[in-house]
Amino acid sequence: MAENKVDVSLVRHSAAHVLAEAVLHLYPGTKLGIGPAIDDGFYYDFLFETPITNNDLPAIEKEMRRILSGDHPFVRKEVSREEARKLFADQPFKLELIDGLEDGTISIYEQDGFVDLCRGPHVPSTRQIRPDAIKLRSVAGAYWRGDEKRPMLTRIYAYAFADKESLEAHLKMLEEAERRDHRKLGKELDLFSTHEEAGPGLVYWHPKGGRFRVQLENWWREEHYKNGYEILFTPHIGKSWLWETSGHLGFYKENMYSSMKIDEDDYYVKPMNCPFHMMIYKSSTHSYRDLPLRWAELGTVYRYERSGVLHGLMRVRGFTQDDAHIICTPEQIESEIAEVLRFSLSMWKTLGFSEIKAYLATKPKDSVGEQSRWDQALESLRKAVEGQNLPYEIDEGGGAFYGPKIDLKIKDAIGREWQMTTIQFDFNEPERFDLVYTDRDGQLKRPYMVHRALLGSLERFFGVYIEQTAGAFPVWLSPDQVAVIPVAPSFSEYAQHVVDELKKRSIRAMALLSDERMNAKIRYAQSQKIPYMLVVGQKEQDDKTVSIRYRDGKQENAVPLADFTAHVLDKIATKALDL
Amino acid sequence: MAENKVDVSLVRHSAAHVLAEAVLHLYPGTKLGIGPAIDDGFYYDFLFETPITNNDLPAIEKEMRRILSGDHPFVRKEVSREEARKLFADQPFKLELIDGLEDGTISIYEQDGFVDLCRGPHVPSTRQIRPDAIKLRSVAGAYWRGDEKRPMLTRIYAYAFADKESLEAHLKMLEEAERRDHRKLGKELDLFSTHEEAGPGLVYWHPKGGRFRVQLENWWREEHYKNGYEILFTPHIGKSWLWETSGHLGFYKENMYSSMKIDEDDYYVKPMNCPFHMMIYKSSTHSYRDLPLRWAELGTVYRYERSGVLHGLMRVRGFTQDDAHIICTPEQIESEIAEVLRFSLSMWKTLGFSEIKAYLATKPKDSVGEQSRWDQALESLRKAVEGQNLPYEIDEGGGAFYGPKIDLKIKDAIGREWQMTTIQFDFNEPERFDLVYTDRDGQLKRPYMVHRALLGSLERFFGVYIEQTAGAFPVWLSPDQVAVIPVAPSFSEYAQHVVDELKKRSIRAMALLSDERMNAKIRYAQSQKIPYMLVVGQKEQDDKTVSIRYRDGKQENAVPLADFTAHVLDKIATKALDL
Repeated sequence: MAENKVDVSLVRHSAAHVLAEAVLHLYPGTKLGIGPAIDDGFYYDFLFETPITNNDLPAIEKEMRRILSGDHPFVRKEVSREEARKLFADQPFKLELIDGLEDGTISIYEQDGFVDLCRGPHVPSTRQIRPDAIKLRSVAGAYWRGDEKRPMLTRIYAYAFADKESLEAHLKMLEEAERRDHRKLGKELDLFSTHEEAGPGLVYWHPKGGRFRVQLENWWREEHYKNGYEILFTPHIGKSWLWETSGHLGFYKENMYSSMKIDEDDYYVKPMNCPFHMMIYKSSTHSYRDLPLRWAELGTVYRYERSGVLHGLMRVRGFTQDDAHIICTPEQIESEIAEVLRFSLSMWKTLGFSEIKAYLATKPKDSVGEQSRWDQALESLRKAVEGQNLPYEIDEGGGAFYGPKIDLKIKDAIGREWQMTTIQFDFNEPERFDLVYTDRDGQLKRPYMVHRALLGSLERFFGVYIEQTAGAFPVWLSPDQVAVIPVAPSFSEYAQHVVDELKKRSIRAMALLSDERMNAKIRYAQSQKIPYMLVVGQKEQDDKTVSIRYRDGKQENAVPLADFTAHVLDKIATKALDL
Repeated sequence: MAENKVDVSLVRHSAAHVLAEAVLHLYPGTKLGIGPAIDDGFYYDFLFETPITNNDLPAIEKEMRRILSGDHPFVRKEVSREEARKLFADQPFKLELIDGLEDGTISIYEQDGFVDLCRGPHVPSTRQIRPDAIKLRSVAGAYWRGDEKRPMLTRIYAYAFADKESLEAHLKMLEEAERRDHRKLGKELDLFSTHEEAGPGLVYWHPKGGRFRVQLENWWREEHYKNGYEILFTPHIGKSWLWETSGHLGFYKENMYSSMKIDEDDYYVKPMNCPFHMMIYKSSTHSYRDLPLRWAELGTVYRYERSGVLHGLMRVRGFTQDDAHIICTPEQIESEIAEVLRFSLSMWKTLGFSEIKAYLATKPKDSVGEQSRWDQALESLRKAVEGQNLPYEIDEGGGAFYGPKIDLKIKDAIGREWQMTTIQFDFNEPERFDLVYTDRDGQLKRPYMVHRALLGSLERFFGVYIEQTAGAFPVWLSPDQVAVIPVAPSFSEYAQHVVDELKKRSIRAMALLSDERMNAKIRYAQSQKIPYMLVVGQKEQDDKTVSIRYRDGKQENAVPLADFTAHVLDKIATKALDL
């Protein structure tokens, strides 16, 4: 897999050269910026004499295909700085790059008479680039070197894959992703909103989003209690003393908002919950008998993100972490980590995610904490992922300075990976807050401390889950579970009776009793992704039955109401993913 | 009752004069400040030549009793400013008061040769002051006129009542209040903490407090859903635009924290949830068919309070309002208000409070909103309290500028009244946010909006409830419901089995399995106010029974475990107040 990944990125980077060649054929005099491979293709930045638009892309793509129909090798040459400057004499951006290169080898690549300054490597020949696996996507403005004081160039984005099938699968996935876009569905299903004028990146949960969240939180709290956690509630603001003690003002300040004054003191809105949990730990003494402590909180934190990167629920400025801190003895750490991982996977399974991959990040160069603790911590993480037979990669040196961690990425229904769960050791805060416990031998010792967020953030999880389900939530999480629709106004009373019966059993039911026609109501209920529609008329009323239309298209007639109720209650109780 | 109240306050104020007389007898040359009646007595401020301490109070009290043994009338005289200045020539604070008086009558009161500057009225004679109904309490420092640049005087506080029985009842209540002090119990039961160094007035809910809160919130949310509310979640910070639009930056700024910068914008931590709910209302259009909307949120707000007035959970800087906003048509307002009040009373009843009094505050001089709306709103409030047969007082002109309100005060187990619930009309924000709905006639109209907090704040409610119950919560709210105690270590396994059985039924049970003696464990469980202690030994194990010790002292032996489980589950399900 790793090899395959390298191949595609060579194809992408090589195709970028071909794009540049095609552009120079069609628009001689164009100045070239840079053209790297990206996740699903590549881009190249140009300074056109006359700006182009998306309409010009087909002609460029045609010229690329013409070039790719030949078999042009990519030939590497090493040149001196003077030769390079001569070769790119009419390319001012390339000259700037050449001037910025450290002394040493300067390499260029040539294909089909087109020469580009490039470190390489490339595929051997244009033959390895499949014309039907490339698709120019769009143009966008991009400042040279990302600096808004430098010229604005035209960036051409392209999709590029190893073969036609991969490109098509990707385009299909994108189309599907657009259909499932949580921002679009969030509006259509009236789930949430954000408000630029009142502060971008801050999420408002509407009544229907609130119902989803209340169900999710109830389940989350129940599961945490069942799994030996306690639930805390802590403030959203803390005095600078707290953030100095924790170290956040030292190493995390750029992610925090500026301070506000209360009396003569500076307070900060919390970017993390941990220092507050430390304060609770310190408010009494602890013996080894009290450990492990597993303290969870649905804590809403606020972090600075540039407004340009904010994106719906996926990237926000305020979010509710499903946070927990585990404080334990060295003897307990292995079983605690195994337990956290097992718990996480069981939660993801309930939610319908089973393809999960772990990323294990190890000790970076600069770090705090004894080597023996790093070793033990890493070992416990590795054993835990192996114990769960979880595929994993090692991210060598990728841990935080305060400890190693596991991140879990889950794969969604259309194959995208989302990083959600994180399990992080922290050797920093227990030192800074001087956490201790009295061990069996009467000595004061330093406990281990692990941060853990399972869903990550409720907001981001909601976004991912809307896209995962295209808004068709499992019954237990559906804001409305049943819509009752009379075939004609004369059956409104029976419809209301059915709703009342369902509500008595705590089923979220509603009657659609407006003047609209039955079919319009069914369409409305479908558009709202309500799992069950009950259509009631003469027959249903006389037999005390209902006709069920399922959200997924199935239909069933003359079902006794008690049977339907039992069916729904079972789906709720078992947190079933199907209807 | 109102008359009785006036009597007592006359007694108190008159007794203050007697205190001043006694002080001048014992400490000639003392300078007099002022001496008003207060809630449960009076105080008088003095500038002693040599400061006195609490140890000097018995002698002063004795002198008061001596004076009170005579029958000295309180005699009012009216004097000119010059006469007054002459009378109080050696009393600089009195002279300052005289200089500050507006032109008109200056009155003095004389008893037993002692003259004080005073508006009155007083009781006819010292005979109406019962010596055994007065008790000097303590001395404290108090700046003249509350101004820290003026001299520090010695304030003598006293309790004073109409009769001995009332004083004794009050002292007993105070003793009881001290025993129930939520700050003391909060520590003993490990329920919560506050941390001066990390920010005073900010509450940390510990694991056991968290369990209480989770149960309370779950119930609160269920009841709100059952009663037709939806639950929202909104951010804790908002851009200045939001607070300018709502008007808070205009009329509420002194209660808000200073702003913090994000990018180039000022953001404020929210002191109220309402503007966020307004934004959700405005994010879509509404027809009369959608109304009423009842939108609730457990929203944590932050308000400035001077650090000197902060007090445990009762007066804090951050608290979670159990907030809701009702948005409805004029036709709906009467039934909506009646419904809110009925809902409030039913919640209070479940929590064990039944003595409730309403305070109905009417239109103040400066106000916004049409007169007809004020009239309709007030009428709906009055009808609602009358409909519930609730005792109420009218607070003429005491409403906010934006609308009339009802506040509910609940009486606790030791007779203290706490203001908790508030139901407030708001004619301001619907205007400022331009809220509209399309009425039956197609016209856009302005809805009514009502703020409502039922418990008020979860923190303050927790404080009141700890004091109400002295920490012995009803079973459903108890952090630990059952402690299982083996008579000897050999029964630990059976004890753990009992706990497992109880936990399977979601009963919060714990086994006390340390090396301590059984009696120490029972004392611990009692000190933690755990409702049920199950003591298990040979007999219990063989018969699969338990011996129950109830928190309130009752005891029962050889109860089948299934019967006990059913008993506890019934107490939980019915939210019973007793065991």
